[in-house]
Amino acid sequence: MARMTSSSLDPAIAARLKRSADGLVPAIAQQYDTGEVLMLGWMDDEALHRTLTTGRCTYWSRSRREYWVKGDTSGHVQHVKSVALDCDADTLLVKVDQVGAACHTGARTCFDADVLPLAADQAG
Amino acid sequence: MARMTSSSLDPAIAARLKRSADGLVPAIAQQYDTGEVLMLGWMDDEALHRTLTTGRCTYWSRSRREYWVKGDTSGHVQHVKSVALDCDADTLLVKVDQVGAACHTGARTCFDADVLPLAADQAG
Repeated sequence: MARMTSSSLDPAIAARLKRSADGLVPAIAQQYDTGEVLMLGWMDDEALHRTLTTGRCTYWSRSRREYWVKGDTSGHVQHVKSVALDCDADTLLVKVDQVGAACHTGARTCFDADVLPLAADQAG
Repeated sequence: MARMTSSSLDPAIAARLKRSADGLVPAIAQQYDTGEVLMLGWMDDEALHRTLTTGRCTYWSRSRREYWVKGDTSGHVQHVKSVALDCDADTLLVKVDQVGAACHTGARTCFDADVLPLAADQAG
């Protein structure tokens, strides 16, 4: 279900947004200058509103069930550079300037540690 | 629910994968050399298996409820360069070599057309 019965998100954007059954949209965070894909988080309408208006990336934490301003506890802030909605209006791409590590493990991105094996004849 | 009761995915990977309630994992497709984020699709175990073993990005289409080998109808193939699982094992990053446009609209990426406005004092 949606987190809130209403949010402050621009109604013109809210009307277009296609949410999952639990009211969320996946948000890809990408380092704006290097192009690194840093992480994927989830936003409801209010998290998107805060991301668009505060300059700080804000997600909905599905495990903690609360808003999560990236970097508030770690210092690893994401300064928002741009936000784009995809052609189906069901995914967000947020270009950010990431301070320090994006991943809670201390790695620069959440995708650094676990590269899956390709079939030998497909590699490269 | 999961698409299939079983798939050919390596059991060691399948055991780690954390799927949504409908048995899927979001997969971010990124152009391997330029870093462009091209699109987000969804994979179940079998789609991931095919992506790892055929060299062609394969998704589960939620709207058509079928496997979808990217480019089979459009020619806009995604050749797989690498696949990584994130720190929570619930998101995939697939680096690809995209032939032509990734987006069904003909745009290079699915995020080219719809940049959302930031609050004026947050821009840049």
